[in-house]
Amino acid sequence: MTPLYRKIADDLIERIVSGALPPGFMLPSETEIGEEYGASQGTARKALSELEQRGILERKQGRGTFVAQSTDEKSLYHFFRLRDADGNQIVPQPDSEQIIRRTATQAEASILFGVPVDVFEITRIRLINGKRRAHETIILPVPLFPGLDERGTLANALYPFYQRVYGVAVIEADESLTPYAAGAQEAVELELKMGTPMLAVDRVARDIQGRVVELRKSRYATDNLHYAITLR
Amino acid sequence: MTPLYRKIADDLIERIVSGALPPGFMLPSETEIGEEYGASQGTARKALSELEQRGILERKQGRGTFVAQSTDEKSLYHFFRLRDADGNQIVPQPDSEQIIRRTATQAEASILFGVPVDVFEITRIRLINGKRRAHETIILPVPLFPGLDERGTLANALYPFYQRVYGVAVIEADESLTPYAAGAQEAVELELKMGTPMLAVDRVARDIQGRVVELRKSRYATDNLHYAITLR
Repeated sequence: MTPLYRKIADDLIERIVSGALPPGFMLPSETEIGEEYGASQGTARKALSELEQRGILERKQGRGTFVAQSTDEKSLYHFFRLRDADGNQIVPQPDSEQIIRRTATQAEASILFGVPVDVFEITRIRLINGKRRAHETIILPVPLFPGLDERGTLANALYPFYQRVYGVAVIEADESLTPYAAGAQEAVELELKMGTPMLAVDRVARDIQGRVVELRKSRYATDNLHYAITLR
Repeated sequence: MTPLYRKIADDLIERIVSGALPPGFMLPSETEIGEEYGASQGTARKALSELEQRGILERKQGRGTFVAQSTDEKSLYHFFRLRDADGNQIVPQPDSEQIIRRTATQAEASILFGVPVDVFEITRIRLINGKRRAHETIILPVPLFPGLDERGTLANALYPFYQRVYGVAVIEADESLTPYAAGAQEAVELELKMGTPMLAVDRVARDIQGRVVELRKSRYATDNLHYAITLR
């Protein structure tokens, strides 16, 4: 059985995603929210705490609880994890991009939200310090991103674009990291020596509703950069 | 100026670390805590929320706020990030271990808590599926870990040991990940081919007081494993 606080949290998320509760909107008090759902103040608080922890709500001291102004700024750079030796964030720049629509593989359909028949596959080469150093393959379910292949070149940072245009707000991702040696084709593509140490990053990205909205395979020749994360 | 909620949070942490507020202890209400520190209920709530998010306190629905029973179970495996292809957690097993006491380098002294003159350096080789696949160097400030080099072989999972014996509770770590190719010495040490793709993981670990208590360099031959993380 779904606990009541979960139901309240899910319902609030739906209202936020639908726009019924817009960014910056001040929520009623915990007591009032509890009453609305026939729950205790403690249960309402638990729901709000969860949404606060996920960055969907913001509590402002002495003022109340608000729908987060926008996850835009956060998501713009939060998922770019490359850093240089001094800890500065490195954002790979676009070099080439290709978008195709194709049938989803069984593995893709089984994990992506809505068990999509078709997916968009975006392939990008990106530059780091002017050199081709990143290769990305991004898989999106067609139903969530209608017309994506008719928009011309996409933004460098895709998550703010997903949110603005499609109302899909990525807030969490699981990643698998593996070192490997560059193969022959990749060496040509990224203009580096075969056997160069590379970092493979396989990402499963979820939106604020917990739906798997994107699969992404990134391949980095990190040179003197590193991939920076925080474990909590 | 330190905001009041920060001061309340820091003071609560001190009381928890000192044992004045033991694991499982139920805290007074937000209103009472506020009164104790001459702060509003909202300010007290903000302090509690922060400690809850850091896993130091636990709110139980309809019952109150409690000092987390123990970070033991969490920390026992939370920082082991290797997974096999099916997502199962892989815990490298001990093979060899060496502990020395030496003068801290300038870089170590400047980042470790207390600017230590001396550090312990633990060097370990660890086994994955029975093969030597991980090399670790762990640097600890001597003042926080007195007598560490006189205890014989240490536990495989060090963080629960730090907490139990030295009251040092690691809850957060920044990591830098870099792929590289195994060098000649490493190839001998880990019984693998020179040039094998490796993952270097450099960790800066902090305890619940935010002190940098450990530096760790891990080197993994991941084979068919990967390093699994979640970005939020």
